[in-house]
Amino acid sequence: MIEKRNTVTIKDVARELGIHHVTVSRALRNTGSVKKETRDQIKKKASELGYKPNRLAQNFRNKRSNVLAVVVPDLRPYFFSKFVSDFMNIAQEAGYSVMIFQSSEKTGVEKEIIDALIGYRVTGVVASVTKDTVYESHFNILRDENIPYVFFDRAPEQAEATQVLVNNFQGAYEAVVAMIKSGKRKIAYISTHYQHKIFRDRLDGYKQALKDNNLPYIKELVIKGGFFMNDGFDQAKKLMDLKEKPDGILAVRDEIGIGVIKYLKKIGFRIPEDVAVIGFDNDPMGVACEPELTTVAQSIPSMVSSSFDLLIRQINSNTLSFEKKIIEPSIIYRGSV
Amino acid sequence: MIEKRNTVTIKDVARELGIHHVTVSRALRNTGSVKKETRDQIKKKASELGYKPNRLAQNFRNKRSNVLAVVVPDLRPYFFSKFVSDFMNIAQEAGYSVMIFQSSEKTGVEKEIIDALIGYRVTGVVASVTKDTVYESHFNILRDENIPYVFFDRAPEQAEATQVLVNNFQGAYEAVVAMIKSGKRKIAYISTHYQHKIFRDRLDGYKQALKDNNLPYIKELVIKGGFFMNDGFDQAKKLMDLKEKPDGILAVRDEIGIGVIKYLKKIGFRIPEDVAVIGFDNDPMGVACEPELTTVAQSIPSMVSSSFDLLIRQINSNTLSFEKKIIEPSIIYRGSV
Repeated sequence: MIEKRNTVTIKDVARELGIHHVTVSRALRNTGSVKKETRDQIKKKASELGYKPNRLAQNFRNKRSNVLAVVVPDLRPYFFSKFVSDFMNIAQEAGYSVMIFQSSEKTGVEKEIIDALIGYRVTGVVASVTKDTVYESHFNILRDENIPYVFFDRAPEQAEATQVLVNNFQGAYEAVVAMIKSGKRKIAYISTHYQHKIFRDRLDGYKQALKDNNLPYIKELVIKGGFFMNDGFDQAKKLMDLKEKPDGILAVRDEIGIGVIKYLKKIGFRIPEDVAVIGFDNDPMGVACEPELTTVAQSIPSMVSSSFDLLIRQINSNTLSFEKKIIEPSIIYRGSV
Repeated sequence: MIEKRNTVTIKDVARELGIHHVTVSRALRNTGSVKKETRDQIKKKASELGYKPNRLAQNFRNKRSNVLAVVVPDLRPYFFSKFVSDFMNIAQEAGYSVMIFQSSEKTGVEKEIIDALIGYRVTGVVASVTKDTVYESHFNILRDENIPYVFFDRAPEQAEATQVLVNNFQGAYEAVVAMIKSGKRKIAYISTHYQHKIFRDRLDGYKQALKDNNLPYIKELVIKGGFFMNDGFDQAKKLMDLKEKPDGILAVRDEIGIGVIKYLKKIGFRIPEDVAVIGFDNDPMGVACEPELTTVAQSIPSMVSSSFDLLIRQINSNTLSFEKKIIEPSIIYRGSV
């Protein structure tokens, strides 16, 4: 006889009672402030519906669920599509299935995805949050169901879950230092309107490198814009129209850096002699352009294997841990510095 | 009282009885040749486990599942990551959730994914198969569960499901004609070892264009290799080392075409004056190189909207249909012809 499947979750109990699922979760775990009357009502209903709290243990018992979920903001950028593809490969080799979700940079969609994961009875989750996700709260439902999760690249600030992050401050810092070493003195930075901490960290790294090398921070040399090649082209025009033109440009993404190179070549500037350019991401597109783009590389293989290992360790030990793994980026020198 | 969830599938019935799920499906639908004794046994067990055949109708009743699945061979190539990302956006706007799977070009993994989809109770599936998937049989389980599916770009040969395909023959044909019109006479073709029909169609289009323009088919000018920029670089070297060098090169992918351009520039050939180059895919990477790469574009927006519409039409009408939609490609002229 096969074991009867149990898919009752705290969300079912919550729906049934018209109570928020966080309240249900608190009541069932005996944590937080839930009125005794409500708590009793919740426990009664949970028992009635056959809710079992420890999904993870249950999965082990059934040996049914060996599904990991990966949630990313956008599948199009090289960094995310490469991460997802590589993660899938090592997970499959280890006997896991992987489902992938895209939040499309919308916190609302991200929340819906996380809620839905409970129903799919995933064993673990790896997530990179949207540009606007500041709080971890919508991930709590995973915690409530004892499903481990790991943030990679972009985590909510003050997240309490395990995370694998890149030292973005250091990446930008070293890129600026590399340009200074090659004789550049007026280094511009093309950033993005995105508010997420990883972009603020890059900006901070840029500023600190100037400061440590006794170069002034010039407001006009820092501009923010879109995320693609044509945005880089347009931003480069703005910078090169300045009276005080930059002799080095750091771009927050390789695609933007390539747009910068295209504009500089169009107006007859030599790279790197007149203007040096560095991007972020180690996107293969940077090898397509001429000169090839020097870039700050987040090691995707390290990020994939760390994220996978830290997730599996939690799954195997049946505990949710808090660990912060920082991956140091490195500069890949090509022809643009 | 919430409706009790029912997740018993034909696979559960099959597992329980130690019988292949295709047999179970046939027995329950009263189709195909299943011995009466076995059929009775299957029906008894199915009823015992509470199996309900019409999952789709059930989903409508529950209003629970509005989940679509997208299955692709590899998320890294621009074509697939862009398709998936855009599909997700229009599906989300229409109120669907989307889960994404990567078969990693392995038919075995693809089969596992399709089997697993039954358990996730998806409403519909959009799939592009692996380079080796010739038969549709592992998709039959979806048909058995009345879950509509649409193939896009790559379909199994003689598939009986609805499909949205690109006219690859015509794309290659027109690319060769474009080079002939610009005065080229010795046109090479860099293909791939992949056996899937879409690649054979491109080769056939190349051959037919030569024939229709009274140009000889020269075996040495057709070579097969890997899928990436460095492969294109290596293949271009082989072609340019020939005694009879080509004056035009068609590449089966843009990334390969960019590798070709890089090699040609390295050895001092001018593009397009000495050698013209055309790729396939309209990958933005083609804009990063110099000269920018002329390309055969499969219209991804058309493919996404057709795939979505044809899937939703089947879901809404609760029928599985067979329709073949052919998207005509177009050449995007940039600087390499």
